[in-house]
Amino acid sequence: MSKRPRNASVQLVVVGSLALDTVETPRSTAREVLGGSVSYACAAASFFTRVGMVAVAGDDFPARGRALFRRLGINLEGLQSARGRTFRWAGRYETDMNDRRTLATELNVFESFAPSLPPAYREAPLFLLGNISPELQLRVLDQARAPRLVAADTMDLWIRTARPALDRVVKRVDVLLLNDGEARLLTGEANLARAARAILGAGPEYVVVKKGEHGATLYGRRGVRVIPPYPVENVRDPTGAGDSFAGAALGALAGAPRISMDTLAASLLSGSAVAAFGVEDFSLRRLARLRPAEIRKRYRELRAMMGGRP
Amino acid sequence: MSKRPRNASVQLVVVGSLALDTVETPRSTAREVLGGSVSYACAAASFFTRVGMVAVAGDDFPARGRALFRRLGINLEGLQSARGRTFRWAGRYETDMNDRRTLATELNVFESFAPSLPPAYREAPLFLLGNISPELQLRVLDQARAPRLVAADTMDLWIRTARPALDRVVKRVDVLLLNDGEARLLTGEANLARAARAILGAGPEYVVVKKGEHGATLYGRRGVRVIPPYPVENVRDPTGAGDSFAGAALGALAGAPRISMDTLAASLLSGSAVAAFGVEDFSLRRLARLRPAEIRKRYRELRAMMGGRP
Repeated sequence: MSKRPRNASVQLVVVGSLALDTVETPRSTAREVLGGSVSYACAAASFFTRVGMVAVAGDDFPARGRALFRRLGINLEGLQSARGRTFRWAGRYETDMNDRRTLATELNVFESFAPSLPPAYREAPLFLLGNISPELQLRVLDQARAPRLVAADTMDLWIRTARPALDRVVKRVDVLLLNDGEARLLTGEANLARAARAILGAGPEYVVVKKGEHGATLYGRRGVRVIPPYPVENVRDPTGAGDSFAGAALGALAGAPRISMDTLAASLLSGSAVAAFGVEDFSLRRLARLRPAEIRKRYRELRAMMGGRP
Repeated sequence: MSKRPRNASVQLVVVGSLALDTVETPRSTAREVLGGSVSYACAAASFFTRVGMVAVAGDDFPARGRALFRRLGINLEGLQSARGRTFRWAGRYETDMNDRRTLATELNVFESFAPSLPPAYREAPLFLLGNISPELQLRVLDQARAPRLVAADTMDLWIRTARPALDRVVKRVDVLLLNDGEARLLTGEANLARAARAILGAGPEYVVVKKGEHGATLYGRRGVRVIPPYPVENVRDPTGAGDSFAGAALGALAGAPRISMDTLAASLLSGSAVAAFGVEDFSLRRLARLRPAEIRKRYRELRAMMGGRP
């Protein structure tokens, strides 16, 4: 993490939505800003490893978006261009910034998106199947040669509308990330520990339950780890926090000698540190100006919050 | 904690409500069972130190309640008897056990309760002002000679109806415990980190924000500590969890060589371990049959959840 990674080969492939977001908060509104799960996850991962983006942009996708991705060292060979409008999402946060309401979703070019991995991506050791339809996640997974670890994120929409495909994803991934309400919805278990155990029984080696401002919990077959949230005092826009969290965690994992509860917990702590910066401004603005030394400082503070040596 | 504490002098004084509770959960109902903040807090503390109870019982208070307290080694010199009915509380939990609705409250003998500390209690080093009206908390505090540490718990009712007295309590205590919604209500800050900082500015050295199934956060003037929840899979009755948490934490603190972020965080972890047992059965049933070795095991597991040596 000390400097922009120089390893030329892509270590982490991320697929997800590339969007132009309109975000309303009680204090202000950002219109048609860079967003989508793949943007946040790739930007967050870029501080740790060489990341490749799999997504689709419409012909209205702004050049400054691609320029930002390039400046962050993100490999864009897997970013397709399509005729038509880029995916749009609009949402509103209520007073306490935890309640979000989706105001509009326009799939646009995502409707006919068929992800295809460039040869360099197929050999990558790590895959993050960001929040898009499980059918698209499976298409990407089918093209991975022999990944060391595959993580997938999901959301309530797919649990409700694409359950058979989602079940196939769950069966094939090593790490499933989802929020607490989604874990309950997926399993029908109100108790989170039982919900996590049910998911572990369906395939993944690890389950990461995201709890918004309460941080996250990592459940493994033989243990549980707490991933604390960094206490951000100025939350300006929580959009993408979960994607930054997952992206940074997978990026950090690329540097781990092996995958275990210890290294996964440490990587998720890096995810928590980076996600805490992302919410301090709209869109990718804070991530775009984030410095590695800032991440290291928050990481140390998070360790101290758990009583560890800073 | 290895055996029932033998030190004869009271190390921790707890004031709070003594109640007969009727608790409805989706699966079953317990009627007129032993409850109230002082019962849970004293029972939880009894595993760690010599605790004295300050409360009032009506003449219908069952002998088996007092017998249980005595068996746990709780000093009852401060437990008054009054003519009339014991305080009653009735509540109902909805499906996911996090939403609670109060169905009925009868103050009864609590209406004219004037707490008076037996001489032996006045010299105690630790005080826990459990959840009762701030006026009563102040009366107890006024009788403490030179406490090493005073902690107070509170609830939304007092924030809404007894704010001037509560402000005096907040100003005079070392540790304030309250839940996340109450921290927001007390300060008008939606962001928990800011809310905690505002409370620290009003007097206490430490603030403990309880977050139910998400554990707790300890805020000090120069740091933050995460107190994880133990992942209980069978929550039968969450009543009193916050009181057990606070009681066990204060009890554990009695054995600490000095009071610091480190020792307070470790004590709160003991609180988390004990609270996790309390919710496994109605009333004080699980605490009544809890063994110190069980507490030590969960404490070690909680430390491991934070990546520490178990």
